[in-house]
Amino acid sequence: MNYRMMGRIISEILAFEAAFMIPPIFICMHEGAHRTMFWFLITTLATLAVAAVLFFFCRNAKKGFYAREGLVCVGLSWLIMSLVGCLPFYFSGEIPKFIDAFFETASGFTTTGSSILSDIEALSKGALYWRSFTHWVGGMGVLVFLLAVAPREKKNGGFTMHLLRAESPGPIVGKLVPRIKQSAMILYILYVVLTVLNIIFLKLDPKMPLFDAVCTAFGTAGTGGFSVRNIGLAYYSPYVQNVCTVFMFLFGVNFSCYYFLLMRNFKGFFKNTELRVYFGWAVTCTLMVFINIRGLYDTWSEALRHAAFQVSSIMTTTGFASTDFDKWPSFSKIILLLLMFVGACAGSTGGGIKVQRVVLLIKDLRRNIHQILHPNEVRIVQMDGQRVNERILKNTGMYLIAYVLIILISTFLVSVDGFTVTTNISAVSACMNNIGPGFEQVGPTLNFSGYSAFSKLVLIGDMLAGRLEIFPILVLFSRSTWKKSL
Amino acid sequence: MNYRMMGRIISEILAFEAAFMIPPIFICMHEGAHRTMFWFLITTLATLAVAAVLFFFCRNAKKGFYAREGLVCVGLSWLIMSLVGCLPFYFSGEIPKFIDAFFETASGFTTTGSSILSDIEALSKGALYWRSFTHWVGGMGVLVFLLAVAPREKKNGGFTMHLLRAESPGPIVGKLVPRIKQSAMILYILYVVLTVLNIIFLKLDPKMPLFDAVCTAFGTAGTGGFSVRNIGLAYYSPYVQNVCTVFMFLFGVNFSCYYFLLMRNFKGFFKNTELRVYFGWAVTCTLMVFINIRGLYDTWSEALRHAAFQVSSIMTTTGFASTDFDKWPSFSKIILLLLMFVGACAGSTGGGIKVQRVVLLIKDLRRNIHQILHPNEVRIVQMDGQRVNERILKNTGMYLIAYVLIILISTFLVSVDGFTVTTNISAVSACMNNIGPGFEQVGPTLNFSGYSAFSKLVLIGDMLAGRLEIFPILVLFSRSTWKKSL
Repeated sequence: MNYRMMGRIISEILAFEAAFMIPPIFICMHEGAHRTMFWFLITTLATLAVAAVLFFFCRNAKKGFYAREGLVCVGLSWLIMSLVGCLPFYFSGEIPKFIDAFFETASGFTTTGSSILSDIEALSKGALYWRSFTHWVGGMGVLVFLLAVAPREKKNGGFTMHLLRAESPGPIVGKLVPRIKQSAMILYILYVVLTVLNIIFLKLDPKMPLFDAVCTAFGTAGTGGFSVRNIGLAYYSPYVQNVCTVFMFLFGVNFSCYYFLLMRNFKGFFKNTELRVYFGWAVTCTLMVFINIRGLYDTWSEALRHAAFQVSSIMTTTGFASTDFDKWPSFSKIILLLLMFVGACAGSTGGGIKVQRVVLLIKDLRRNIHQILHPNEVRIVQMDGQRVNERILKNTGMYLIAYVLIILISTFLVSVDGFTVTTNISAVSACMNNIGPGFEQVGPTLNFSGYSAFSKLVLIGDMLAGRLEIFPILVLFSRSTWKKSL
Repeated sequence: MNYRMMGRIISEILAFEAAFMIPPIFICMHEGAHRTMFWFLITTLATLAVAAVLFFFCRNAKKGFYAREGLVCVGLSWLIMSLVGCLPFYFSGEIPKFIDAFFETASGFTTTGSSILSDIEALSKGALYWRSFTHWVGGMGVLVFLLAVAPREKKNGGFTMHLLRAESPGPIVGKLVPRIKQSAMILYILYVVLTVLNIIFLKLDPKMPLFDAVCTAFGTAGTGGFSVRNIGLAYYSPYVQNVCTVFMFLFGVNFSCYYFLLMRNFKGFFKNTELRVYFGWAVTCTLMVFINIRGLYDTWSEALRHAAFQVSSIMTTTGFASTDFDKWPSFSKIILLLLMFVGACAGSTGGGIKVQRVVLLIKDLRRNIHQILHPNEVRIVQMDGQRVNERILKNTGMYLIAYVLIILISTFLVSVDGFTVTTNISAVSACMNNIGPGFEQVGPTLNFSGYSAFSKLVLIGDMLAGRLEIFPILVLFSRSTWKKSL
């Protein structure tokens, strides 16, 4: 195991995290939240100091950085990021319990959006900004950010690809352009442009404060779901909700599709199987939910707005709520539950199993049935006209197995707290798929504060496993990773 | 497609089904239920006539019977068996609606045990006997029965193996002895002996009527779950419940283990991975449930009895209820829910995913993690000291994908009826895993009669898919099976 190289990468991540904490300091200063400002400052300085020491000790890293190091490094980085990021919340007293602060921050970075806060508006603006910003940087990934901006010597033995693979969502992770640094930069430029557009559209509503617009855009861009209002997106005008519906959907699209558009590769865009399925399901589910709930609201347009908003919010695993969908009829709830698992597109900021994986799994299953019927025929699985490697199909199947196992085991573990079966299943699903709210006691109008510290740790593990697509976390906690001999 | 051979097999199955309906005729005669007796008689004669005509037309069957024919034949047989078996219920008026009669019979043959009856004791004894007997013959499989007893010319092109494979549960279907007819006979002899032992042990309770003992033993042997009493097994003494606990567990064991015992192959018995895992989980779960519910009952021994009974009943997918476990704390309910999915051993009469599959999936996942860490090492998966074929591992993964998809799609379909989310999920899980009762509106004290005809059809499909392990049903309804050119 190349510990020095891992140390160097983690030191760089810590340095960036420290830099990210500078805006909250100024916001706190502006609103006069001195205690919170003080702790953001202390955390920033302490993190920088630790990063500097770590960098010093790891400056002469050897080459030789493989998939294993990539996975462990990504898993560790996200754990450390969440632990460091929660310190200002805890020390400033804005979130009194450490486990709650840790839960909230992990929920932020993993773009889950599950909260333990009953009164969100009681927090200082600096803390609220930081809470929403974790969504933004977690959405595209902090290691992708590192790859985009940090200077990197040449001939690094391909280690950057292992990092990109381990952090990026989806079964098939490719580069947009031959150089990884440029690929990562393109991704972040697209991400920034879309986020700025989102802020501008939100600000077109004259009643929308700039602070709310920025934080809501962060939550939308990362498909996170933290809002700065107690009643969530229901606080804002229908126009703002509609803007969010559209942008949530846009952030759930594979970013390489936007690159295709930019490169005027319209065929690559419109013939993209995943995008077509994603769009088709979104429209179909919106219509079905709309028909099911149209009687619950005063006008059909209101029902359609809520249906589209909630489908977009759940499908992209954002988790914003424009209304209490826990009160909807069970047909609509089941549709939302299914969408929770499917999730957004691979290579987007959304979570879940990912549309691409579902499509691959169904194609593989159809091939298998064909092979039972015609044992002597050899068939390949194609996606967008290209042959899918058998290794990727195998990994996709393994992903599903690990996914199901983790959900079942986690549900069992959190059930010691005595909540209802639906609450437990939906809490685990909401965390694992990085959505946010579940049903019943963790429904959109309630929060996760009732769970014990043990259950919160389990759910934090689920959030990390969900965001990093399981394997980095499994590898991090696998015995054979840490065997001395290897 | 070798239609003639399929027709011949189906004609033989119909003849056996007609023969199986003879005992109910005499039971009805004895109790004086003349209307029901008349319809059992008519159905028997009509079925025999149809079988004879079908046999006549298909008498010159060609050879050439492959996996495809085997799967289609098994799928069709079970569908036809259920349709024929429900006729006496319907025509005699004991179950007034046809869809309900069909549901009840399919639930019987597939050893599910989900019922649409509110008042079971209102049925005539002949009808109750038939209802329980469907469990018994469905448990070990009617095609296995056919293979065991029907005369078969030699050199039949291996078609019997395709039938055995398609009907027997588990990822690895082998023969006990080189000849299939003998293997099937050994299975049925073991099955009959265990069933008779079960009846004897039940009858040791002097208050237990013979009729109840026989029907309860049928329900236990097939791991079905139909009882002849409205309140289920809670009607009988603790002794009877304990006997059922033990026998349910025994019928959930892979029958080849009993053959090992008979052959004095003790190593094969005691070193059997699946058996050890099955036993370990049963004991662990019983203890956990016992600790969780010990405060709910007067004495600890009563709590232990219910815990052991319910774990054994759910794990083997029998579905008998000794108490209303829907009222248990959610920790115990989640354990039962997890056991529902795991199910019993491969090669037993139980349903669910099967312990062996779960073990294989976990082993395959561990290998995959190892391969991510050490990409250049080649590893094989072993089970009981033998290498597991990659084809079997692939099929096991495919099984899981199909399983998850069917559960999700079925839940979506039945949710149009407006029951709660938990009801719908547990109803589909209970049918798919051939258990019987679920939670809430389909809990152990309630039944499935509230669902619409459409939902009942979906649930019947789930029961058949669960019992036949999905692929026969998928193949039966797959377009490419029926293409003329093939």
